[in-house]
Amino acid sequence: MTPDPLSTKFAALADPTRRAILARLALGETSVSELAKPFAMSLPAVSKHLKVLEHAGLIGRSREAQWRPCRIEPEALKEVDGWLEQYRRLWEERFDRLDAYLNTLQAKEKKPRAAPKRPKPPR
Amino acid sequence: MTPDPLSTKFAALADPTRRAILARLALGETSVSELAKPFAMSLPAVSKHLKVLEHAGLIGRSREAQWRPCRIEPEALKEVDGWLEQYRRLWEERFDRLDAYLNTLQAKEKKPRAAPKRPKPPR
Repeated sequence: MTPDPLSTKFAALADPTRRAILARLALGETSVSELAKPFAMSLPAVSKHLKVLEHAGLIGRSREAQWRPCRIEPEALKEVDGWLEQYRRLWEERFDRLDAYLNTLQAKEKKPRAAPKRPKPPR
Repeated sequence: MTPDPLSTKFAALADPTRRAILARLALGETSVSELAKPFAMSLPAVSKHLKVLEHAGLIGRSREAQWRPCRIEPEALKEVDGWLEQYRRLWEERFDRLDAYLNTLQAKEKKPRAAPKRPKPPR
């Protein structure tokens, strides 16, 4: 069974090297050898990661220039964001509840209190 | 090498059944047998998926009730959202550029044009 496109994207993102490659490409397109530099990794190993990212639609590679620069494809990440959207209200509601609770605590703090009882002076 | 927490989350999300389980749990906590109903799947198969989700911190299971209800943990998805945040500007910039382009086209449309040339009436 071929995985669905969203599963392929999540699987591609489940690797810190591939996420680091995306972070580098977010700064601008670059060549495979430039991409490989910060990693203690062979060119074939980097190429393998790039293939996974390309297959998931997360990056694209130009076929025009001979050095075939890689670029990030933000639309693919937007799809992941669209999936997350349906869950956003869950954590936002949670924060709203926490906020309401903190406001209740603060309101209690501000309530004018009866003057503290002073010990009676010794007679 | 143990995968980092974010990689574990992405790997857990790279499966349509696990995402369907999360979608069900977003409606409220429920038991494993209830969760299994809409899937053509054995209870052990569902349990295996739940273990992956639990290990990734995406769901929690109550130890109080005997039926051990499962609940979604939105904070874990918020972490995924936090990672996406750094890329959001990339697709937003793209839309801004498209928007600017469409505005240019519309402005050209609205420009008062010279009256269309009418064919001269036959003399």
